[in-house]
Amino acid sequence: MFPGATADREAASYVVVGAPLDVTTTFQPGTRFGPDRVRRFAESYDNYDHRTDQQFTELGVHDAGDVRAWDDVPEYCDYLGGQLRDVVWDGAVPLLLGGEHTVTAPAVEAANPDVFVCLDAHLDLREEYDGNAWSHACVTHRTLQTADEAIILGARTGSADEWARAEADDVTVVGPESVDDWLADPPTFGGRSAYLSVDIDAADPGFAPGTGTMEPFGLSPRQMRDVVRTVASACVGFDLVEVNDRDDGQAAALGGKLLREFVFSHSALDS
Amino acid sequence: MFPGATADREAASYVVVGAPLDVTTTFQPGTRFGPDRVRRFAESYDNYDHRTDQQFTELGVHDAGDVRAWDDVPEYCDYLGGQLRDVVWDGAVPLLLGGEHTVTAPAVEAANPDVFVCLDAHLDLREEYDGNAWSHACVTHRTLQTADEAIILGARTGSADEWARAEADDVTVVGPESVDDWLADPPTFGGRSAYLSVDIDAADPGFAPGTGTMEPFGLSPRQMRDVVRTVASACVGFDLVEVNDRDDGQAAALGGKLLREFVFSHSALDS
Amino acid sequence: MFPGATADREAASYVVVGAPLDVTTTFQPGTRFGPDRVRRFAESYDNYDHRTDQQFTELGVHDAGDVRAWDDVPEYCDYLGGQLRDVVWDGAVPLLLGGEHTVTAPAVEAANPDVFVCLDAHLDLREEYDGNAWSHACVTHRTLQTADEAIILGARTGSADEWARAEADDVTVVGPESVDDWLADPPTFGGRSAYLSVDIDAADPGFAPGTGTMEPFGLSPRQMRDVVRTVASACVGFDLVEVNDRDDGQAAALGGKLLREFVFSHSALDS
Amino acid sequence: MFPGATADREAASYVVVGAPLDVTTTFQPGTRFGPDRVRRFAESYDNYDHRTDQQFTELGVHDAGDVRAWDDVPEYCDYLGGQLRDVVWDGAVPLLLGGEHTVTAPAVEAANPDVFVCLDAHLDLREEYDGNAWSHACVTHRTLQTADEAIILGARTGSADEWARAEADDVTVVGPESVDDWLADPPTFGGRSAYLSVDIDAADPGFAPGTGTMEPFGLSPRQMRDVVRTVASACVGFDLVEVNDRDDGQAAALGGKLLREFVFSHSALDS
Amino acid sequence: MFPGATADREAASYVVVGAPLDVTTTFQPGTRFGPDRVRRFAESYDNYDHRTDQQFTELGVHDAGDVRAWDDVPEYCDYLGGQLRDVVWDGAVPLLLGGEHTVTAPAVEAANPDVFVCLDAHLDLREEYDGNAWSHACVTHRTLQTADEAIILGARTGSADEWARAEADDVTVVGPESVDDWLADPPTFGGRSAYLSVDIDAADPGFAPGTGTMEPFGLSPRQMRDVVRTVASACVGFDLVEVNDRDDGQAAALGGKLLREFVFSHSALDS
Amino acid sequence: MFPGATADREAASYVVVGAPLDVTTTFQPGTRFGPDRVRRFAESYDNYDHRTDQQFTELGVHDAGDVRAWDDVPEYCDYLGGQLRDVVWDGAVPLLLGGEHTVTAPAVEAANPDVFVCLDAHLDLREEYDGNAWSHACVTHRTLQTADEAIILGARTGSADEWARAEADDVTVVGPESVDDWLADPPTFGGRSAYLSVDIDAADPGFAPGTGTMEPFGLSPRQMRDVVRTVASACVGFDLVEVNDRDDGQAAALGGKLLREFVFSHSALDS
Ligand SMILES: [Mn+2]
Ligand SMILES: [Mn+2]
Ligand SMILES: [Mn+2]
Ligand SMILES: [Mn+2]
Ligand SMILES: [Mn+2]
Ligand SMILES: [Mn+2]
Ligand SMILES: [Mn+2]
Ligand SMILES: [Mn+2]
Ligand SMILES: [Mn+2]
Ligand SMILES: [Mn+2]
Ligand SMILES: [Mn+2]
Ligand SMILES: [Mn+2]
Repeated sequence: MFPGATADREAASYVVVGAPLDVTTTFQPGTRFGPDRVRRFAESYDNYDHRTDQQFTELGVHDAGDVRAWDDVPEYCDYLGGQLRDVVWDGAVPLLLGGEHTVTAPAVEAANPDVFVCLDAHLDLREEYDGNAWSHACVTHRTLQTADEAIILGARTGSADEWARAEADDVTVVGPESVDDWLADPPTFGGRSAYLSVDIDAADPGFAPGTGTMEPFGLSPRQMRDVVRTVASACVGFDLVEVNDRDDGQAAALGGKLLREFVFSHSALDS
Repeated sequence: MFPGATADREAASYVVVGAPLDVTTTFQPGTRFGPDRVRRFAESYDNYDHRTDQQFTELGVHDAGDVRAWDDVPEYCDYLGGQLRDVVWDGAVPLLLGGEHTVTAPAVEAANPDVFVCLDAHLDLREEYDGNAWSHACVTHRTLQTADEAIILGARTGSADEWARAEADDVTVVGPESVDDWLADPPTFGGRSAYLSVDIDAADPGFAPGTGTMEPFGLSPRQMRDVVRTVASACVGFDLVEVNDRDDGQAAALGGKLLREFVFSHSALDS
Repeated sequence: MFPGATADREAASYVVVGAPLDVTTTFQPGTRFGPDRVRRFAESYDNYDHRTDQQFTELGVHDAGDVRAWDDVPEYCDYLGGQLRDVVWDGAVPLLLGGEHTVTAPAVEAANPDVFVCLDAHLDLREEYDGNAWSHACVTHRTLQTADEAIILGARTGSADEWARAEADDVTVVGPESVDDWLADPPTFGGRSAYLSVDIDAADPGFAPGTGTMEPFGLSPRQMRDVVRTVASACVGFDLVEVNDRDDGQAAALGGKLLREFVFSHSALDS
Repeated sequence: MFPGATADREAASYVVVGAPLDVTTTFQPGTRFGPDRVRRFAESYDNYDHRTDQQFTELGVHDAGDVRAWDDVPEYCDYLGGQLRDVVWDGAVPLLLGGEHTVTAPAVEAANPDVFVCLDAHLDLREEYDGNAWSHACVTHRTLQTADEAIILGARTGSADEWARAEADDVTVVGPESVDDWLADPPTFGGRSAYLSVDIDAADPGFAPGTGTMEPFGLSPRQMRDVVRTVASACVGFDLVEVNDRDDGQAAALGGKLLREFVFSHSALDS
Repeated sequence: MFPGATADREAASYVVVGAPLDVTTTFQPGTRFGPDRVRRFAESYDNYDHRTDQQFTELGVHDAGDVRAWDDVPEYCDYLGGQLRDVVWDGAVPLLLGGEHTVTAPAVEAANPDVFVCLDAHLDLREEYDGNAWSHACVTHRTLQTADEAIILGARTGSADEWARAEADDVTVVGPESVDDWLADPPTFGGRSAYLSVDIDAADPGFAPGTGTMEPFGLSPRQMRDVVRTVASACVGFDLVEVNDRDDGQAAALGGKLLREFVFSHSALDS
Repeated sequence: MFPGATADREAASYVVVGAPLDVTTTFQPGTRFGPDRVRRFAESYDNYDHRTDQQFTELGVHDAGDVRAWDDVPEYCDYLGGQLRDVVWDGAVPLLLGGEHTVTAPAVEAANPDVFVCLDAHLDLREEYDGNAWSHACVTHRTLQTADEAIILGARTGSADEWARAEADDVTVVGPESVDDWLADPPTFGGRSAYLSVDIDAADPGFAPGTGTMEPFGLSPRQMRDVVRTVASACVGFDLVEVNDRDDGQAAALGGKLLREFVFSHSALDS
């Protein structure tokens, strides 16, 4: 159980769902251990959040455990999507714990946001990767089947085709060096709903080495936190993905903290 | 390059082929790093083998590098099989370095042995695992489409169905406690050809912790070596699979040694 | 949840209880992560046990989770003992997952066996260690307040006082070199009940490096397994202790396997 | 020996004392290995400090080794306090190497400063934690029995009660985002004496993952260094705590560097 | 092979040469594994670079593999120098992968630049270290036998003698706090040629823990990248040294990225 | 200090000397950390030895610390030899802790035994290795300049030349499979003095992965122990070499235990 996620499923405002998919992970595998690792390294966090003056245990977070993964990615995503739709239909906000980034696709479909906001080192705008349209490297492309627009913060690499795709009107890329400016003057979402996906590799590898594909020159933890704080109020869904067990806990500790930051911010703004 | 594998492809009697497939790996992934890791930990082995009075570099071993893996397992296996068939057609013995055990299937198809001999903790006799017929857990089942018979040494676990399947005439299971007896009186293969597949998890986890699914109560390194020595002369193919990078080198060091032992034994008996 | 421990608490014949106490651990700490680690590394074990022809999921094992530990060891042991007494009163066999060996004391009190059987490198017969009577190094001494007799298998070290204490009639020490003899002619417990405590450091460090105090020249995994098989039928309680997270999973994999072996053996003999 | 701590005890201006207490450590244990690890990772530092134009070996630092820890925390702290009082009475500045933060309490009592300055992610202002008044989480509260005032730099988390306690006049909390401002205009201590305690978790986990409870969004190493430089001249005692062995040396390397920085700064200002 | 280094030796504009020398490494050894590790962690980088609109595979990079090292450092450096001179004579730019920093000396001799630019935590201006004039700690001193001038960026430690040597006209030290200023107004090299040597320990240890001698308070990855971008156009040679295998890949990932950044920048400016 | 080595230098019967040489180490370096690591992992051993009924602290063991190593191997060996001669002249038995095996050479010279007994996977009979006559791989060859005879137990690999050299009358090789026979009927040394050198890689890698060059099919810890017990009484010197820090403590724990076993056995036989 995610520490402090003590609410019952029925009464929950937020539902943690683990999705330990680890099939298309490029380079360093282990994201299947992500959900457990994030839960474990969140154990030492205080229940109380001073900024928002809230206790985590009072915010109605339920941990539904993991949706056990298998090798057939489309089939798994379909099944996972069903579980997440149930969460949405129950009026709760899904907090998805990956697993590879691929799991974001069914979550976005379930949450059905207007805008897909993503912290990621990578554009993930490929139509397919190594012949696989269900690769983690295609996930932002895939979410644009649901969302009208994608904002990718911290992105610093992609193929030439992805960068070309990123030129289109429905994609905004905010490079690592531009994130502070973006934070200084963030978009108002108007009445539009958003979904926030945190690929932990948006962080500089110094802060999150435990991920499949480290990409230097990334964001600082505080920048990621400030993006979470900025976007949370508009969000109908959240995920944290691509954490693995190949570091000393840095990636998981940061990831779990960002999830909590999302809940504290979202909850504070609701009230 | 596998240390000492200095022969040219054309002149080679043995061809090392890496197959870093890591898609269906159960539990602990990382077998994609197996081929490189086995090569690395073989660096410190002496060129000379005292028992057979041979220099490794004189035995005609070529390292063809890795057949880069992708997510579509049947497609990959098909392609890998083609590469290995080339080796066989050139009159060389393939030395396959996994990668998950699944890669053994196309190797067996390419080598086309009469008997499939396997060191493994697991029966791997499933028709499918988690809905996937291409899982590593089905590989011995799959090799029986090619080979007439399978001998599984060191096996100590499986499903009820697998154990039932193992009752059939074409399967011989030699449990860890019976391997010494088997070695004392091994089958003569007559003129039949064999293929030897070494799943490193046949070893007790104390000797090979770096593998996907550790299974206690396994074989000692010397038992595995003696099986290699016993079987090598009849073999038309060899593989070493399921080594990953999650230990301090024990699994890779043992694996690389067994591969060399195969070459020394096979070569000595040829002459 | 321990994999396969799917029974409801009410219907359970066996109840897994985690006791992540890690206060008096000598040398290398981390046994607080023992219960989770044992559960994790048991994930890849087959449900089916060929020797006893049983499915683990059909044996009525429930996982009650962990009894969260705190710094006051006597107080914690008292509370833990209460939880375990509930298990015993419900007619189920407690399967305790440590945590430091200290947690065995309340478990023995709860199960109230005639004979305390222990696999341990250490005598653990001290009256106090470093001024602390609640140290893990005193646990066998402490269990003799409940049990009439202790049999310590695999023990190879202790203080002069402990060895003197071990001379008494109520203690039998079976050194590592004598375990095979003991197994060849084990005691019949008659109608007497036993409790089996497995301190993972009974194993040679090569097989279980992830423990607080490695002690070379220990038992092989198969010897430990055979002790479990031999003793299980007489047992009213079982524990596995002193596993930490400082290895590559060897200690946890072995520990989880021994727990399963206990259940398979105990259950088979019941029927 | 801390590298370069070559002075005799009698002639020493600074005395390193290791206090490997690791009893109440929350979450990840191992701070018992902190003193040795800090010494080890300080081996590669140059003797010479360019900024202050001093050689470390000429500054009169003695390493008194460790005060071996045991399980009874109050008793240990009492004994440790005696050792540290001896240092103070000899006119030397104690440089305490933890161990868990708890060891700071007797050091502050021994050094008897007017102001307690602390680098810490946590307020540590609890009266007790899990029923234990001797927990590391209570240490700043405890030092306020000696010091008139506490300044906590880098603090970013605590319970609601701790934050309420922090509102009192005798506590100043300087959050991570405010540390630069504080450094730009630090308090003059007037004639008041200070004690500086460095809980390594004040650093962002990216810079010091080897600690019990990582807390993201922390200080940079240079900020911590600048606090040390700013405060050192007023100090009658120093400690570095909460370093463990669960990373690749980052926490220990930073900790040892800060200790040296303290000595260089303190010594330069003395002269 | 360094990923994407697909050019033939004859056609190459850049030649990667591994030099796994690890003889004089101070403190933590393992830099012998540096070349392989840098290659491995560069696997996940995109071929395309958006800033310069180039594909790495089109830039003519060849990987010549490693020049196997042995214990006689001067002899090895002599031989390595010969290999690198061949590269220079062929009109290609050498990209040397250490190995300890010592290997830079023959590379500078081969490339024969006017200015030696170095990213390093250390001055490396010793005439000898521990009696050894071929130590890594003497490398910048040694390069000044070839180059007219040395610019050392990020340097923060050295002996008193080294700092005195650094006062001379042919040495410029830019401390970590001054690198941003230097980048804002970098020297124009006029027609003078430069050589860029990247000792990974220039980075703060949080970003590159896998190196022999971590030195806190270092550069950020982006500062190092900006130095590479600034200097590349003037360069006739490049190296990356002092990466070892004692972290979770951070040092290697950063190092490989900087090498690519050098190639992209150098190539873009050529055209 | 090696735990329990509390005797004064003057009164000592045994003197521990650390020799962290790590210059010619093949493959995996880190043996420079061997002495500290062996000391650390010996912390948890009981003072009392039941077999010989002795307390370690009463046996007169002094720890003289380390003889700090530098890059010039012959020079270092010369200096180290001087230190060890002092030990011998004082009538004490040197207990050398390597470091690479090379350090055995000066120790043998200092102790001047008639017979050199060695536990090693390797023959170490080369005249030079990679052009270096001071390589660890030449150490047994070198000791034969002092000793009349060498007995190498557990050896299983070497070059053709080494095996040829091993045919000579002054060398006895006892392969791993023959060690039990040798133990059953060990040579009587008559009045001849012996020196015992334990290269930890004599053990199977499962029991001692933390060494430079793992060589499978090795000895069990008990076999090594029994060799120590058998030879100790005749010995005038002892060493333990080739332990590094690249495992979870197994190699160091075994090594420290064997050193203690040597002292207990040697001391018991003296009395
Ligand atoms: Mn992504
Ligand atoms: Mn990404
Ligand atoms: Mn298999
Ligand atoms: Mn298997
Ligand atoms: Mn015990
Ligand atoms: Mn024990
Ligand atoms: Mn604290
Ligand atoms: Mn803290
Ligand atoms: Mn350097
Ligand atoms: Mn440097
Ligand atoms: Mn040797
Ligand atoms: Mn050896």
